[in-house]
Amino acid sequence: MRILDARLTLPLLADALRSVATRGRPAAGETQAATGEEELLRQAELLLSEPDEASSLALSLSIMRGYSELGVDARRSWLGRLAQRFGPDLATLRRAAEAFVADPGEAAAARLLKTAEPRRQELLRRLNHAPGATHALVRMREDMMGATEGDEALAALEDDFVHLFSSWFNRGFLQLRRIDWTTPATILEKIIRYEAVHAIPDWAELRRRIDPPDRRLYGFFHPALGDEPLIFVEVALTTAIPDAIGPLLAVDRVPIDAAIATTAVFYSISNAQRGLSGVAFGDFLIKQVVKELRRELPRLTRFCTLSPIPGFSAWLRREAAKPDSAVISQQARRQLALLGHPNWLRKPAAAAQVNQALLPLAAHYFLGARDAAGRVVDPVARFHLGNGARLERINPLGDRSASGLRQSHGVMVNYLYDLGEVASNREAFIGKNQVAASADVRRIAGALLRRSEREANTKRSRTS
Amino acid sequence: MRILDARLTLPLLADALRSVATRGRPAAGETQAATGEEELLRQAELLLSEPDEASSLALSLSIMRGYSELGVDARRSWLGRLAQRFGPDLATLRRAAEAFVADPGEAAAARLLKTAEPRRQELLRRLNHAPGATHALVRMREDMMGATEGDEALAALEDDFVHLFSSWFNRGFLQLRRIDWTTPATILEKIIRYEAVHAIPDWAELRRRIDPPDRRLYGFFHPALGDEPLIFVEVALTTAIPDAIGPLLAVDRVPIDAAIATTAVFYSISNAQRGLSGVAFGDFLIKQVVKELRRELPRLTRFCTLSPIPGFSAWLRREAAKPDSAVISQQARRQLALLGHPNWLRKPAAAAQVNQALLPLAAHYFLGARDAAGRVVDPVARFHLGNGARLERINPLGDRSASGLRQSHGVMVNYLYDLGEVASNREAFIGKNQVAASADVRRIAGALLRRSEREANTKRSRTS
Amino acid sequence: MRILDARLTLPLLADALRSVATRGRPAAGETQAATGEEELLRQAELLLSEPDEASSLALSLSIMRGYSELGVDARRSWLGRLAQRFGPDLATLRRAAEAFVADPGEAAAARLLKTAEPRRQELLRRLNHAPGATHALVRMREDMMGATEGDEALAALEDDFVHLFSSWFNRGFLQLRRIDWTTPATILEKIIRYEAVHAIPDWAELRRRIDPPDRRLYGFFHPALGDEPLIFVEVALTTAIPDAIGPLLAVDRVPIDAAIATTAVFYSISNAQRGLSGVAFGDFLIKQVVKELRRELPRLTRFCTLSPIPGFSAWLRREAAKPDSAVISQQARRQLALLGHPNWLRKPAAAAQVNQALLPLAAHYFLGARDAAGRVVDPVARFHLGNGARLERINPLGDRSASGLRQSHGVMVNYLYDLGEVASNREAFIGKNQVAASADVRRIAGALLRRSEREANTKRSRTS
Amino acid sequence: MRILDARLTLPLLADALRSVATRGRPAAGETQAATGEEELLRQAELLLSEPDEASSLALSLSIMRGYSELGVDARRSWLGRLAQRFGPDLATLRRAAEAFVADPGEAAAARLLKTAEPRRQELLRRLNHAPGATHALVRMREDMMGATEGDEALAALEDDFVHLFSSWFNRGFLQLRRIDWTTPATILEKIIRYEAVHAIPDWAELRRRIDPPDRRLYGFFHPALGDEPLIFVEVALTTAIPDAIGPLLAVDRVPIDAAIATTAVFYSISNAQRGLSGVAFGDFLIKQVVKELRRELPRLTRFCTLSPIPGFSAWLRREAAKPDSAVISQQARRQLALLGHPNWLRKPAAAAQVNQALLPLAAHYFLGARDAAGRVVDPVARFHLGNGARLERINPLGDRSASGLRQSHGVMVNYLYDLGEVASNREAFIGKNQVAASADVRRIAGALLRRSEREANTKRSRTS
Repeated sequence: MRILDARLTLPLLADALRSVATRGRPAAGETQAATGEEELLRQAELLLSEPDEASSLALSLSIMRGYSELGVDARRSWLGRLAQRFGPDLATLRRAAEAFVADPGEAAAARLLKTAEPRRQELLRRLNHAPGATHALVRMREDMMGATEGDEALAALEDDFVHLFSSWFNRGFLQLRRIDWTTPATILEKIIRYEAVHAIPDWAELRRRIDPPDRRLYGFFHPALGDEPLIFVEVALTTAIPDAIGPLLAVDRVPIDAAIATTAVFYSISNAQRGLSGVAFGDFLIKQVVKELRRELPRLTRFCTLSPIPGFSAWLRREAAKPDSAVISQQARRQLALLGHPNWLRKPAAAAQVNQALLPLAAHYFLGARDAAGRVVDPVARFHLGNGARLERINPLGDRSASGLRQSHGVMVNYLYDLGEVASNREAFIGKNQVAASADVRRIAGALLRRSEREANTKRSRTS
Repeated sequence: MRILDARLTLPLLADALRSVATRGRPAAGETQAATGEEELLRQAELLLSEPDEASSLALSLSIMRGYSELGVDARRSWLGRLAQRFGPDLATLRRAAEAFVADPGEAAAARLLKTAEPRRQELLRRLNHAPGATHALVRMREDMMGATEGDEALAALEDDFVHLFSSWFNRGFLQLRRIDWTTPATILEKIIRYEAVHAIPDWAELRRRIDPPDRRLYGFFHPALGDEPLIFVEVALTTAIPDAIGPLLAVDRVPIDAAIATTAVFYSISNAQRGLSGVAFGDFLIKQVVKELRRELPRLTRFCTLSPIPGFSAWLRREAAKPDSAVISQQARRQLALLGHPNWLRKPAAAAQVNQALLPLAAHYFLGARDAAGRVVDPVARFHLGNGARLERINPLGDRSASGLRQSHGVMVNYLYDLGEVASNREAFIGKNQVAASADVRRIAGALLRRSEREANTKRSRTS
Repeated sequence: MRILDARLTLPLLADALRSVATRGRPAAGETQAATGEEELLRQAELLLSEPDEASSLALSLSIMRGYSELGVDARRSWLGRLAQRFGPDLATLRRAAEAFVADPGEAAAARLLKTAEPRRQELLRRLNHAPGATHALVRMREDMMGATEGDEALAALEDDFVHLFSSWFNRGFLQLRRIDWTTPATILEKIIRYEAVHAIPDWAELRRRIDPPDRRLYGFFHPALGDEPLIFVEVALTTAIPDAIGPLLAVDRVPIDAAIATTAVFYSISNAQRGLSGVAFGDFLIKQVVKELRRELPRLTRFCTLSPIPGFSAWLRREAAKPDSAVISQQARRQLALLGHPNWLRKPAAAAQVNQALLPLAAHYFLGARDAAGRVVDPVARFHLGNGARLERINPLGDRSASGLRQSHGVMVNYLYDLGEVASNREAFIGKNQVAASADVRRIAGALLRRSEREANTKRSRTS
Repeated sequence: MRILDARLTLPLLADALRSVATRGRPAAGETQAATGEEELLRQAELLLSEPDEASSLALSLSIMRGYSELGVDARRSWLGRLAQRFGPDLATLRRAAEAFVADPGEAAAARLLKTAEPRRQELLRRLNHAPGATHALVRMREDMMGATEGDEALAALEDDFVHLFSSWFNRGFLQLRRIDWTTPATILEKIIRYEAVHAIPDWAELRRRIDPPDRRLYGFFHPALGDEPLIFVEVALTTAIPDAIGPLLAVDRVPIDAAIATTAVFYSISNAQRGLSGVAFGDFLIKQVVKELRRELPRLTRFCTLSPIPGFSAWLRREAAKPDSAVISQQARRQLALLGHPNWLRKPAAAAQVNQALLPLAAHYFLGARDAAGRVVDPVARFHLGNGARLERINPLGDRSASGLRQSHGVMVNYLYDLGEVASNREAFIGKNQVAASADVRRIAGALLRRSEREANTKRSRTS
């Protein structure tokens, strides 16, 4: 049985996406002037009033192409105008609201709901009719990210996008696929491009991530996005919880037989579609991959991460800037001063001093420190702790790369997914803001707290 | 690249669907008592409050299975309770409505929209997380069809279903597939089951519909429904517009080479999923099939239907019951009386008399008659005319089957899709309720009108 | 990656096969007179002398089509002429033979081999260039089966076919596929057509053989034959060794969960291509299916057959015709006489008598009786015993169908593949003509022998 | 329908090939000593005498693995012993030869053929039973290439390989596939590795060869070799016959729309399997690709090559070494002397001089020069001329790469496949050794000949 859509629509899709990709420059060979913004709004009006759903396809294609030919600024300005023009009918909505207030029953609520839905949502649904439109709409939302501040209508349009995407990219419609060396190059090149944690510079490195028997890469895909991954995770199969990323990615490492592995390490999770921010997949992905791996390799008993700590250096800098920081002792300040020496990393004595200071501070960063909103500071930590993982181990010098040193002075961390305690961990974290951590990590953080209390007492006794 | 979901979820899917299929009886091998309705509502509450989206999967699976084990009546009663319990928070909605009335801006409208969305919608989205859930939800909606009368909450739940389905089954997510003799039997048996216009009694007949070079069958599929077609259309390639279904489906007909065909005849369109009523696909399907056929067979120049007239007999009966019907002449009444003779069909003279009466009445049925709402009476006519087709020809004795005789005394009709006039036809039909028809049909209907006017005049002159 | 051959060659293939299928009548639309036999031979000469291998494709296609348009008799006569005309060059071969006799080394042997190869083999290899030719050649060989008697050249041509087919259909090129209800209808209809042991009258019966969880159907396929199976086997998963085919195929039986099955029963093996006689696959098929089943269902511990005994009735008739048969006692003769009664099957007392006679005679048929060549009489027995199976149990009234009664008075038999003894069983059977059998079967046969000896002694003592 | 073989055999295949790939070193994790050569011969004996074809699979797997663990020299020595031990039974063959000489009929010839077949052939057929064996056998034959000189048995074994491969890799079993950027990486990396004409240094260059709309790559594949191409050809779609490879492969060239191309240029043909030498595919490949391209792009009217001239420099060197070469004039000698200057290529005047000399000499190289066997000197020319192409144009400085300069001082050539004259060209070339060439090339070669005759006359008149 042939699937005919692919053949019919892919050229169109390619066109649309190429246009989107060139970001505002007319596609090669197109000589006509870009359709004006006003004309595109007029076509959008037409699209909404078009009784024939099939011919709406041509209109939506025309609008998507016209949009793709706009420059970056013109896109934002056009989206702003669109957001305003296709909002709800405020006068009608007011009447519906008054009617509901007068008689607040189910039927009136249903009418209110219908009236409250802005015309933007139906417009986006009709734009989606064109082949390849779903991906183009994800890109459109990407275009407006960070521009909604102070623009009520644009912010409401972003809400509309997220509302629709949450419906379209419902978990029930996602497909988990394993990516390996038999995968088409069209998909593989996207993995290279989208990898966000530990960059993949070339195809040889890509192969090392997906081809050896002890490596896996899984991604979520959506039928309407074809070869575009939504999110993917890279997994190393090992016999112990790793404490550094270097050996895990070493060019000359010797792979092991997957059948003897006991531990699956999620060492990189990358969102591939910025335009889908606010639609959560990561949680699902990790849990389905755990399920899949347990099915394939029953000997696996441990599922953990080897994760960066993207907010640690910045937090430490802020903390160190406080003259009376309760958590950085004088000794620690002296030790951290060594970070200014260009080669501290390679001098064992200096590295030992630095790490002696960093380890308890990192423990405190996770267990004690909170941001202005009262949350755990680190975004990666919030993700895994919110999924029910436990902070298992802190690894000084886990990442000696430039970015690793910049964001966390080389410190990495393992989060452990212990299926027996995932539910209670998550509940404690979400409900009570309590961080699940191993005894070791708790002990280290506790020692720092006791010392800082001692120091505080000493200080007080001195000053008093 | 392996797609892993299929393997993981299909057994679950099969379970869920089997349960649904058995309609209320516990699946074989399940010994535990069916989960009570109250317990299922409690699980639904839990599902909505569950912060961990991944573990919601187990809950949604449990609810879908529990539901599938309920009997028909219990299902409806449960859906009613669910509709009420998970409606919008009316008190909160009232405050939001009042706030909007006080300050009716974009931001307040956005807040109102969010408040007005009943919890039912999020519940349905979460139920959809379970493997196979999309199809089960379509069946769930089917269960409640026809039961919403007088139940505001249930009617609102049905609105929620249609709202979500319209989003999920957006044209952009549908796949057109050609079904032929190389298609897996799992799909073919569904074609046999769902064919609604000209029944397919066995595999030999199925093969005659899809295997000869001058036959085509196309369907829309949705990725989340797997092998389940949403709607499909059967096409015959011919060298003339056919006037009867019999020869088209004759067991011993001689197929022609597709390359010499000039005409594509859509002789059967069947919706396969009752639960998707209110989500329109047929229009898209016909137009994409026309596109696909023109691409494959550039010699095709005519696209028409050979359609039943499901409402004709009933309308005629109603019309004949009026003692002073303006459209049925005395001669026609005498001729139609022959329909009471069991063998009129096989007696040439009787058949000629009957058809002499039926032809102008059928023309009038389409062009002149209107229902209480002022619409064209025939639902199939409304569908094709609304798509921009033109009423091309009326074919007495086009369908000599029992059902053909019952619904339209054997009369069939051709609608013609003339791509040059589809847009204007549609506009005239939708905008001005004008029916596009060939000169012949218009002439026949006109003659009847003139005669009835004459008769009316004669009558008036007699009675005056 | 598209495979282009399929698209390019399938129409041609279809043409060729349709022609073959119509067996000698020109295909529809072909107006030119069938190519004469002489012309086809001339084209064959040209094909062999054509230096350009690519243009040989057109010639081979022309020859295959011309051949397909010949009638049955013309085909055989043409093959006979071809066999003679394209034999080895006898004069040259004689010189090579003399040269070898004069100096019988490796190099001279290699030259002799090249000279001895008849031009027929290269001709068949070149005919195979045309798309779809492999299947057409298998049909060509089928055409000549049974006609080689007394025709040295034709017999040599058949040798050439078998030689090439053995090379082309080497085990390394065969693919095992599981056929189930998701299989395309094109393949399923062939299963219906080729099933040779227990006929499949319709699609409902086919579904019962492949869709329930406790049923399997596996076949060998060859890439060049596409959807044409070479051989296939039907398997029932059970919890005991079955003693009758009726319950196994009953329309209303309740399937079991495959996971609780302990026994895999091979109840039908069908060769699908008569033209491949002499190229053995059955042995491979059974053993690979055993491997596949053990991998999928580790709880399976027994692999057996439920087999017909095609030669039993005929042997018994021959034996009974001997007035002094040592194996049929007087009592047995009386009991067997009941077989003449039309309803013996349904009369418990008669059936018990008949079976009391049949059981020991069947045991003797396998263990004691031998054909003129000294072989076990039954061809099915030779197949399974030659594969290393053991004769496990004899089942009177195992097959109550007309054909079962005709060929073996309803008796069936189980052969058991005990992987621990397959090798030694096979060696004993092939090397020493010893039949492996269960203790029960041996006991039954032994009792018959002892009785017949006693009868013989009694007779001798009487006559003496 | 699942194909079960793939899953069952690929791990085995991978094992076997990895072993073959490591060329004689034991595979990682294998601790047992490599099976001795003698033991492998013993297993081969066993394999031939094994009556059970299925259990022969284990033996053949063991032999293939044992072989793969031998070092390069051990492999050759083992193949030599195998060739001798499994030759034909010379004594029996002698009797058969004598019998045939005595009575040289068809039946005796058939017996002679069977006796003459060395046991090696059946051995190779049985070795092929193991999964992945076909590719391993191709590698085995590769191991022995170039070692048959002076070893009659080994030469006969090579004959056996070629005989079987010609049967197994019959054109009827080959699949044409298009390779593009959606092709799995496993296949693409093989294209990088096997490209033999214009090396592909990295994935970016590979993409430039297969992804742009005006580039194509087609290969022949065999089902038993899976992802291994047998031979492939690279095609550029252009609007003119190109005269240099540089612009064709330039990194920054602008692709054209395939629909406006008029010319298909075959600029690289690579055999991927050395072990299949002697089994011709190239001819078929070009012609099927021409067919496929004409079907897809009806505007294409010209099919040509842009080819290297691998033998030109060497021939010129030999010619120049002759003191009295009739074809190299004194002026040409002076001009060719400039080739010694390192930068002649970049100095317009020098390059002009050089090319003035090279052009007529190249024309003569093709049209006039012959090797010791009387054949056209250039192997690439023999291939294309033998396929029926015409020598269309000679392009000085067509290939400025180091290898281009080394093999032909940068000169390239176009062969044109004019479908109207392919047959007659081929016949003239094969039958009468006549080279088809354009009028231009003939004129250039003719001028050189006339001048050399004039020079010869002049010389004669001087010396006389």
